[in-house]
Amino acid sequence: MRALTGVTTMDATLRYEVEDLYAAYVECLDSGELERWPEFFTDACLYKIIPLENFERGLPLALMLCESKGMLQDRVEALRRISVYAPRVLRHLVSGIRIRPAPPPSPEALRPSPSEDGKETGESAGVISVQASYAVFQTLVDEPTQVFNVGRYVDRVVREDGKLKFKEKLCVFDSVLVPGSLIYPL
Amino acid sequence: MRALTGVTTMDATLRYEVEDLYAAYVECLDSGELERWPEFFTDACLYKIIPLENFERGLPLALMLCESKGMLQDRVEALRRISVYAPRVLRHLVSGIRIRPAPPPSPEALRPSPSEDGKETGESAGVISVQASYAVFQTLVDEPTQVFNVGRYVDRVVREDGKLKFKEKLCVFDSVLVPGSLIYPL
Amino acid sequence: MRALTGVTTMDATLRYEVEDLYAAYVECLDSGELERWPEFFTDACLYKIIPLENFERGLPLALMLCESKGMLQDRVEALRRISVYAPRVLRHLVSGIRIRPAPPPSPEALRPSPSEDGKETGESAGVISVQASYAVFQTLVDEPTQVFNVGRYVDRVVREDGKLKFKEKLCVFDSVLVPGSLIYPL
Repeated sequence: MRALTGVTTMDATLRYEVEDLYAAYVECLDSGELERWPEFFTDACLYKIIPLENFERGLPLALMLCESKGMLQDRVEALRRISVYAPRVLRHLVSGIRIRPAPPPSPEALRPSPSEDGKETGESAGVISVQASYAVFQTLVDEPTQVFNVGRYVDRVVREDGKLKFKEKLCVFDSVLVPGSLIYPL
Repeated sequence: MRALTGVTTMDATLRYEVEDLYAAYVECLDSGELERWPEFFTDACLYKIIPLENFERGLPLALMLCESKGMLQDRVEALRRISVYAPRVLRHLVSGIRIRPAPPPSPEALRPSPSEDGKETGESAGVISVQASYAVFQTLVDEPTQVFNVGRYVDRVVREDGKLKFKEKLCVFDSVLVPGSLIYPL
Repeated sequence: MRALTGVTTMDATLRYEVEDLYAAYVECLDSGELERWPEFFTDACLYKIIPLENFERGLPLALMLCESKGMLQDRVEALRRISVYAPRVLRHLVSGIRIRPAPPPSPEALRPSPSEDGKETGESAGVISVQASYAVFQTLVDEPTQVFNVGRYVDRVVREDGKLKFKEKLCVFDSVLVPGSLIYPL
């Protein structure tokens, strides 16, 4: 093997951390421990579930939209109160995680947020852009497992108190037809 | 990027090894080389395929249960003798591998085993706890590929003669409905 | 944890690079940027989509066969001209990437290629053998996402100008039944 160029041990170590973030994130969702879900995000954040077509055309319509950790917590509380949904098991597979130099922040991310105001030299400082493919399988009681939702995560990750957290998480899904309905976060 | 904390090169290296163990394990199953399958386990081991519901409720009923490498070998021999099954191709995808500090051993693992007796300072020494999500696709002759079985591996891994091996492997699957039947190990 | 043996930092770093190659490759396909697809290959290359049965029996029949970057480019041009296909979104999940010492080159790879002639000390110098499992999901407009094609990549990767590229990429798929038809590269 010839000399390796362009990859440092730090890259590999950061990749390890990012992969672990995604593994922990989907494990939280798949084990149904939704109360822990908001903890994967920064206080000021953007969480969106949007169809691919809307994402590509820049249309704002989303199936789920939360703009702060508080909104994510409200969402979980609402889910817990409204228990009309048939019990189901979700299983996420994530693949093809790509870490890139952070692009300019999206318009939504440009709003000043109390948690960072004045502490950072700039919005893009320390922001990691991450994309990954996901497939979610759903199992309803006494039914075979089926493909539920497939798409791509388009995320922005930052370090907060030494831990990686999502500042932005867009779940861009391929099919507008979802078996049953999309109740739980992706 | 700010300084990385909490992840060492050794972590990343161990992760590499664990990922390779899982890649080699599923490649063995998918290529149909079942005779090599028991070699991924320690002599004293626990292999179980159980529905998620039984796992969560602590119910013992399992679809497959082997408690030593010898039992795994017996299982393979039985599979080879009984050739009434339609030929099929399996394909495993594994994702979200998480390595954790080893929890206390499960009750089954507490039995003393001849292979280690007196050689270890304790059952938990050198035991790695690993979890991962899996999806298995099945293809029968002249049929389209379908989702066969989806779930989570809940494993305990040890190092034996320098190689990582499964001391415990629980395949916890999401749906009790399996297309066709579950004949081969997961 | 006892001392780790047999894995060096370089292994982990190379693995990082290989994983990134696959992540970038499938992202190119899934985002529909087919014009960038041939750039993942060396000038002299072999790209084949073949059913598992033919691969195992050594039968040459393939669904797609390209033997140079030029042929890959021709293929993309043809796809762009012939726009009779219903629009679709593909999503690849890749798992179980295994890097191995390179085996002897396949008969197809033995032909001399102008790009390397006399520059390498041998065909096997610097060649990395990589295998991985893949699942491709397809979404047609107003239809639910379905399992499209599942199989294994059997690849040979080399370093060219510091970047990893495919010298050989065999897409060995499990089912001869493909929903719709296999138009786009895997």
